[in-house]
Amino acid sequence: MTDLVSASLDRHDTIRAVIYADGALRLLDQRELPFAETQVECRNALEVAKAIKDLVVRGAPAIGIAAAWGVVLQASLLDTAGHEITATALNSTFDTLNAARPTAVNLAWALARMRRALEQAVSQSNRDPLAVLSAEARAIQDEDLAANRKMGEIGAGFLGNSIGVLTHCNTGSLATAGFGTALGVIRAGYANGKIKQVYAGETRPWLQGARLTMWELVRDGIPAKLIADSAASHLMKSGVVQWVIVGADRIAANGDTANKIGTYQLAVSAKRHGVKFMVVAPWSTVDMETKHGDDIEIELRDPAELLSISGRRTVVDGADAWNPVFDVTPAELIDVIVTERGAVAQHAGGGLRALAGG
Amino acid sequence: MTDLVSASLDRHDTIRAVIYADGALRLLDQRELPFAETQVECRNALEVAKAIKDLVVRGAPAIGIAAAWGVVLQASLLDTAGHEITATALNSTFDTLNAARPTAVNLAWALARMRRALEQAVSQSNRDPLAVLSAEARAIQDEDLAANRKMGEIGAGFLGNSIGVLTHCNTGSLATAGFGTALGVIRAGYANGKIKQVYAGETRPWLQGARLTMWELVRDGIPAKLIADSAASHLMKSGVVQWVIVGADRIAANGDTANKIGTYQLAVSAKRHGVKFMVVAPWSTVDMETKHGDDIEIELRDPAELLSISGRRTVVDGADAWNPVFDVTPAELIDVIVTERGAVAQHAGGGLRALAGG
Repeated sequence: MTDLVSASLDRHDTIRAVIYADGALRLLDQRELPFAETQVECRNALEVAKAIKDLVVRGAPAIGIAAAWGVVLQASLLDTAGHEITATALNSTFDTLNAARPTAVNLAWALARMRRALEQAVSQSNRDPLAVLSAEARAIQDEDLAANRKMGEIGAGFLGNSIGVLTHCNTGSLATAGFGTALGVIRAGYANGKIKQVYAGETRPWLQGARLTMWELVRDGIPAKLIADSAASHLMKSGVVQWVIVGADRIAANGDTANKIGTYQLAVSAKRHGVKFMVVAPWSTVDMETKHGDDIEIELRDPAELLSISGRRTVVDGADAWNPVFDVTPAELIDVIVTERGAVAQHAGGGLRALAGG
Repeated sequence: MTDLVSASLDRHDTIRAVIYADGALRLLDQRELPFAETQVECRNALEVAKAIKDLVVRGAPAIGIAAAWGVVLQASLLDTAGHEITATALNSTFDTLNAARPTAVNLAWALARMRRALEQAVSQSNRDPLAVLSAEARAIQDEDLAANRKMGEIGAGFLGNSIGVLTHCNTGSLATAGFGTALGVIRAGYANGKIKQVYAGETRPWLQGARLTMWELVRDGIPAKLIADSAASHLMKSGVVQWVIVGADRIAANGDTANKIGTYQLAVSAKRHGVKFMVVAPWSTVDMETKHGDDIEIELRDPAELLSISGRRTVVDGADAWNPVFDVTPAELIDVIVTERGAVAQHAGGGLRALAGG
């Protein structure tokens, strides 16, 4: 983990949530950040699926990348055992990984891409399936990093001068192959002098904003203040925030966007206060098969996540909780959706279709 | 503390946040709930002011009551020392208690009432100032309990049948002399069969909803689910909540209402979803001297409250936070304000003036 502790002017370049090397997938354990930089090592797809489910790795693009490497790990095991590597042989691997979490479409997208690559390799008998799968996973990871850089440039172009921005959850290097989606735009906007102050919602119950986003922002030296999620409207009313910039877990064809619970609330409030609302996500997050946000499955997680904090019970025994971890922001509340293919401002539905056709 | 552990059909009747007896003020330490029912004993006004500042006791009515008893404690010390009990002799006591927290007007209201009672007692030389002060503090406490019962009845009258309600922070027995303001309406609405399900926002950073409101609801056997503060809009969109019912720390003459941070956000969202919004507070919370919500001082507390949870640091070193603990909900977003003098529906400004004149 020397890459995590080395000093760098671009410190975010040193953060890698997902590292594949020497037949093992090493995931930076995001449950332990910011105080311990430990890694969970996965040697098969089941371990990767569990790591995704348990939030060792999280963030829509990052779980897609991790799942792709999970396929490589399992194919490698088949190979070692002398079995043929085919889509049929890996069926249960695809299913297990796909079922790890339901809302972020990047998971299904990455797995579908891996399956297609494998099927093509198998049909072309001169190609080594394992090498093809490894190359595809590497491409998914590399393309995500490139997409983030591109989105950073595009998204920052929408920002005015000397502004404050509010973000939610973690959409940085930890959630992606590097640089980040919404946090990538914030990094680019800070680098070009447009953003003066960042506010980050703490993002209960997992505190991704408090634990992860603040960690990334402090490492980068970007002026940032943490707020309680419930303080966002009061913050907007005070006039110091001009943009809300968030990521996405699934964007429907009409522009409705599923993202971390609380995003919808921010959009409702932004509309009231004349604060602009930007969604930043790679094209792999866009799901043209899903017509409306209402069709997106929202993951309900264990109530226990709300009843304890850092493993310490905070709520009386016998108490119940309701713990949806995503919500859907309707397209009408989103000013601009930024993807690496381009940005769609307003009336997102039609705009997405145009990009999809491109 | 036998009153806290005795079984009762009305278990909330056994919760007392503020107990004065035998020359000492015992405050149920709300920082330790729900897992330890310990008390902090105060023997002078300075200790009471510190307990208010440190959130041993919180909730607008409860801190008013505690402050009133703080005056009694200090008057008693004067008496023991052979000094005369006068408003002048207690000037610094009034100032110290008044400065403990800025937003809830009940504190200033209770102290002003204690001062008036003392001045009257002194001007009528046949009355014992200490006895008058004790009686006044007792009256403030008893009247608050009676007001809560009355507000419960009035507020519950607005509710439809088989409804779900969402509340925020803690407004129950712990925040008052007993029964509660918003939680009193919820208790009454559950008792008369109108309320079927309660949702409570956890209320970061102090988790009054998670730690205190859920404790009171579970004790009463009222069906309740905890939610992340950020899940409120998603909850409203799902259609299971018909009313948001909250307390208040200060209600301006025009109906603008200061309450726990996050209340404004709930009101903005309630308006979008056609969910009704009720504020419940005793008349002591109404501040006719403050014309608009913009004139209400919002307490900013230590950023450290957001950087740690239960004493355990959660955010990277070097991180900053913005920690306003109240916000203001404009009257236009409030459907009804319930006080023990009556309810004011819509156009709250004029309605409050009518009640004030009554």
